[in-house]
Amino acid sequence: MIVVLKPGTKQEDIQKIIERIQSFGLRAHISEGEERTIIGAIGDERLMADQTLESFPGVEKVLPILKPYKLVSRDFQKSNTVITIGGLKIGDKRVHVMAGPCSVESRDQVLQAAVPVKEAGATFLRGGAFKPRTSPYTFQGLGEEGLGYLAHARELTGLPIITEVLDPRDLEIVSRYTDILQIGARNMQNFKLLTEVGKLGKPVMLKRGMSATIQEFLLSAEYIASEGNRKIILCERGIRTYETETRNTLDLSAVPLLKQLSHLPVFVDPSHGTGRWDLVAPMALAGIAAGADGLLIEVHPQPEVALSDGPQSLKPNKFLALMKDLKKVAEAVGREL
Amino acid sequence: MIVVLKPGTKQEDIQKIIERIQSFGLRAHISEGEERTIIGAIGDERLMADQTLESFPGVEKVLPILKPYKLVSRDFQKSNTVITIGGLKIGDKRVHVMAGPCSVESRDQVLQAAVPVKEAGATFLRGGAFKPRTSPYTFQGLGEEGLGYLAHARELTGLPIITEVLDPRDLEIVSRYTDILQIGARNMQNFKLLTEVGKLGKPVMLKRGMSATIQEFLLSAEYIASEGNRKIILCERGIRTYETETRNTLDLSAVPLLKQLSHLPVFVDPSHGTGRWDLVAPMALAGIAAGADGLLIEVHPQPEVALSDGPQSLKPNKFLALMKDLKKVAEAVGREL
Amino acid sequence: MIVVLKPGTKQEDIQKIIERIQSFGLRAHISEGEERTIIGAIGDERLMADQTLESFPGVEKVLPILKPYKLVSRDFQKSNTVITIGGLKIGDKRVHVMAGPCSVESRDQVLQAAVPVKEAGATFLRGGAFKPRTSPYTFQGLGEEGLGYLAHARELTGLPIITEVLDPRDLEIVSRYTDILQIGARNMQNFKLLTEVGKLGKPVMLKRGMSATIQEFLLSAEYIASEGNRKIILCERGIRTYETETRNTLDLSAVPLLKQLSHLPVFVDPSHGTGRWDLVAPMALAGIAAGADGLLIEVHPQPEVALSDGPQSLKPNKFLALMKDLKKVAEAVGREL
Amino acid sequence: MIVVLKPGTKQEDIQKIIERIQSFGLRAHISEGEERTIIGAIGDERLMADQTLESFPGVEKVLPILKPYKLVSRDFQKSNTVITIGGLKIGDKRVHVMAGPCSVESRDQVLQAAVPVKEAGATFLRGGAFKPRTSPYTFQGLGEEGLGYLAHARELTGLPIITEVLDPRDLEIVSRYTDILQIGARNMQNFKLLTEVGKLGKPVMLKRGMSATIQEFLLSAEYIASEGNRKIILCERGIRTYETETRNTLDLSAVPLLKQLSHLPVFVDPSHGTGRWDLVAPMALAGIAAGADGLLIEVHPQPEVALSDGPQSLKPNKFLALMKDLKKVAEAVGREL
Repeated sequence: MIVVLKPGTKQEDIQKIIERIQSFGLRAHISEGEERTIIGAIGDERLMADQTLESFPGVEKVLPILKPYKLVSRDFQKSNTVITIGGLKIGDKRVHVMAGPCSVESRDQVLQAAVPVKEAGATFLRGGAFKPRTSPYTFQGLGEEGLGYLAHARELTGLPIITEVLDPRDLEIVSRYTDILQIGARNMQNFKLLTEVGKLGKPVMLKRGMSATIQEFLLSAEYIASEGNRKIILCERGIRTYETETRNTLDLSAVPLLKQLSHLPVFVDPSHGTGRWDLVAPMALAGIAAGADGLLIEVHPQPEVALSDGPQSLKPNKFLALMKDLKKVAEAVGREL
Repeated sequence: MIVVLKPGTKQEDIQKIIERIQSFGLRAHISEGEERTIIGAIGDERLMADQTLESFPGVEKVLPILKPYKLVSRDFQKSNTVITIGGLKIGDKRVHVMAGPCSVESRDQVLQAAVPVKEAGATFLRGGAFKPRTSPYTFQGLGEEGLGYLAHARELTGLPIITEVLDPRDLEIVSRYTDILQIGARNMQNFKLLTEVGKLGKPVMLKRGMSATIQEFLLSAEYIASEGNRKIILCERGIRTYETETRNTLDLSAVPLLKQLSHLPVFVDPSHGTGRWDLVAPMALAGIAAGADGLLIEVHPQPEVALSDGPQSLKPNKFLALMKDLKKVAEAVGREL
Repeated sequence: MIVVLKPGTKQEDIQKIIERIQSFGLRAHISEGEERTIIGAIGDERLMADQTLESFPGVEKVLPILKPYKLVSRDFQKSNTVITIGGLKIGDKRVHVMAGPCSVESRDQVLQAAVPVKEAGATFLRGGAFKPRTSPYTFQGLGEEGLGYLAHARELTGLPIITEVLDPRDLEIVSRYTDILQIGARNMQNFKLLTEVGKLGKPVMLKRGMSATIQEFLLSAEYIASEGNRKIILCERGIRTYETETRNTLDLSAVPLLKQLSHLPVFVDPSHGTGRWDLVAPMALAGIAAGADGLLIEVHPQPEVALSDGPQSLKPNKFLALMKDLKKVAEAVGREL
Repeated sequence: MIVVLKPGTKQEDIQKIIERIQSFGLRAHISEGEERTIIGAIGDERLMADQTLESFPGVEKVLPILKPYKLVSRDFQKSNTVITIGGLKIGDKRVHVMAGPCSVESRDQVLQAAVPVKEAGATFLRGGAFKPRTSPYTFQGLGEEGLGYLAHARELTGLPIITEVLDPRDLEIVSRYTDILQIGARNMQNFKLLTEVGKLGKPVMLKRGMSATIQEFLLSAEYIASEGNRKIILCERGIRTYETETRNTLDLSAVPLLKQLSHLPVFVDPSHGTGRWDLVAPMALAGIAAGADGLLIEVHPQPEVALSDGPQSLKPNKFLALMKDLKKVAEAVGREL
């Protein structure tokens, strides 16, 4: 940690900063330049939570040197994390596509999505039973009934399932049904939920918050990892920007960046990332070309009557066509599908 | 709702859209222009959740006409909502300042903040016992022990308290202690929590999410109101932008805008809104000048050793000076403090 | 254009709005809903510049129906624009890579970049002679001397050149040397420059402004087109968001979106789009997978001593490796390189 | 400048970085921590333009210590810059309001705005003759004819004028008429224009770019100052964010921040900052409360028929009411109007 001092800071104020640094077991090293004096705090600066040095008289700014996350970083573990679920390896050479409807609406609707996505080559079935909806007047999900439909579809198709959990109180029941727990963008900083999920052994997909930095994203993953659960998949799903033509701005540069900073598998969700079915295919291809380990794609048998996210859902035939194109791009970048 | 069609949309596709509109009990009205044909959906478009018409063939875009929130809107209630807590009226002529430390750290620390803020004219004591922290390695709050210290300070000073609740499971205990429940920015779209808080009769302060639009903010308030709890205070606390000199960008235009769109009281939090104690005073003054009904300000007896948010906390003497200036600005805009 | 009225708008105010609409030669059509009355303005709403109807008493909001640009839109021209330069067709099946240094620094440096990029398969040479620099204390470009070095490199390698013009006063001289005029992000709304460039017959690459919406981007292209020059290449080069790990956030969804809305060729600049050489390759591959017609890539013989943008420049050997990978991805999506 | 090295960086790579630092006349100081080694570059790091050290093998990141601007900084000049124009002092105790129409439309229209704003207490007349318009199909300004109308209004009212210059080629003519040259948001990084304006002795108001950071804003001011012109007024006019209810997000925290970092006067433009006349008054009051030295406000005799920016223009009677309120707030914060 580097503390930059304002010009003319008094010796006694400098002394107080040094003592504060030392009180955390770090060493302080002063360096006087022509325009600014700086103090380096040498040691594990993570012990100095919240950079409170900025409140000290004379401090102009504080620059962190170390990354605030540890267990999820590439520094900590050089090799890629590979998560095995029902014999499928996530984070390995093979790219995985998790597909299915935004919301579980009925037993039939889930099957009408699950069967064709399986045939097209998807390896996981997605579907929401507990739904975070912006308006209280819209469909809120079927709850446990929906989980049952997902389980039924898994039985028939053999596809493992991924579904979202919103509330720590639902964790027990959702865990009973699902193969992967999904933490949605709105809950990326629901730290209580992260902590609880961290105590379980179940794989978890953590979606990037709508306005989360890469660092905050990895710190949220660290919450889970620090409780003992290392089976974490990161998912880029679009961030909020000023652009309104798309629902979000899919930040694909997050993919190679996260792969560089962390050893965890990285997925892309082009459905939420764009909010428009007609942009899903090109962005899915781009995601794989950028190095993603997999995709999360919304497929609905009849998007026009979907109870949520119809505008961003693919019909099964479009999904099939996409999978064929994805296979080619995956192979072009040395992966397989 | 206006549905704009792509040029050359087939008659049968138009017919399907019309039938879909009618299936929700709305009337459809076609209007043919030179370049585009549009269909107006007349009636309560809120029944058509999620604008799924965008998935229909031939639809270029869908433009909502009505606001998606109702109970919290100025259309629904013309007069200002005034919330009375311990004889104090929030949303009335008098401006209220809620002040205190970011985190409750000890019995003494709370008192050392509570006594001077009371003397300076604050009417509520703030302090966090359950803390949402970006990193798992930083102080997470004292929990119920902290709630006890707040209650103790209330007993001694007479100041009603406001404190944050993070988890539906803590709601019962936090409610037992606090006068106002605070929903933090990270939980603005924790819909389960909003729903639970909506079932209680306790006043709630809802902070704007880090990247929430005004519309999403009011929809979150609508979640609470639709469950029966109308004692809602809105709080602007800064939004995330590209600017990095400040922790957030305090969007003061949200104040007059929210007052126009809604009947609920509006507060401003210049501490989180800027993240820098040296900007708190000017932005607090600006907030009142913009028409806010009150302020939420972090005051710590010793910001340098604060366990959280030290850099944005005022010392008691700075807070006292600010209160004197605030009084003048409040009077200049026809309010009192 | 749809004018949404506030509840309770007086008849005389409605009348004034109708008269205003009619004064532009448009027809007005009133539709009364339960909660809102709306007025549709039917005809070429582009004649009603600036939506001044929002200033009329009783107007809640004004919703445009038509796109404000015309000549550059897919509605206006269904087939792709193909621009031929020195026998090379831009916007056709073949993907083009324009590569070279950020700044022209010397005759040798340009050649040391031009020769290897040509050998690796680039079809155009890029290089800046007039540089827009954030700080007045940094290298500002060699000016005409630099243009001469570019022309020299073209002579030796046969690569047509693209270089930026900043100032209408330099247009004549830059045009004399270059094959493609580049309008940089900072000048995307330099309307005087756009107008002048529109009067020339020379191909122009227009880069998206740092915070330009897709609509503003196309309106800037419309400035050029409306003056008669239709040889326009659009270039996505990253937008400004809250994320700081990358210099900009490369918005690849702009590629399929622009291809949908416009008939113009679309390029991607992963060098500026990320600001980091180690992210250039994956984002270049992703850009082609997303449907881009070409790439603009910074290559420098010695990035460590570059006078500008060293951190985002590839070394020739890395560029060569990238070109091989690009070829595979281009073929996977039905293009060639 | 602090160079943070990746773990395991080779000694020879460290040596190359040190030599590079030394080649700029700076000293290099190595400090080895437990997790990272850092190199401090001591001296005037502004000489190391563009932080090219990031391209060196082994470099994880480069952290600047010094501010990149100099002449406009508070470090360089402690006392406030006061600019005297026609006997009026800008940047002194008195707050100045510059008001008038967005565009000059006719001789009469300017007068119908100028006379009442003068009577209401405005001290400068604003009005645009050269207009930067997003669409080529909207009114582009009257050019020199408009400048003449402004000069005519100045003659009749005695108000000095401020008007925008877009193009270096118009600088001579605009300078001949105006008292203050305005550089609009879209030209904040038109470095050629900044350089030319810097060579003149005329006061200049520099508006913050739509997505400019505070640092970039001050660097643009530095362009002007470094050419010799120190009569610079900074103007916050709203930045682009994800919020769409307002045209821009007025970043009032920029006011106290700029006053802290720089000695230049700071103005606020609540008209462009909000884009809505009904938000102009509260944000004007807030701007003064936040410490602004003045305001730029659009006033039009008939906003409904304005050729530009009608929706954000005040009518003269609303402006008069605002001026009365502004006087009270100015006095409340120790200023006068």
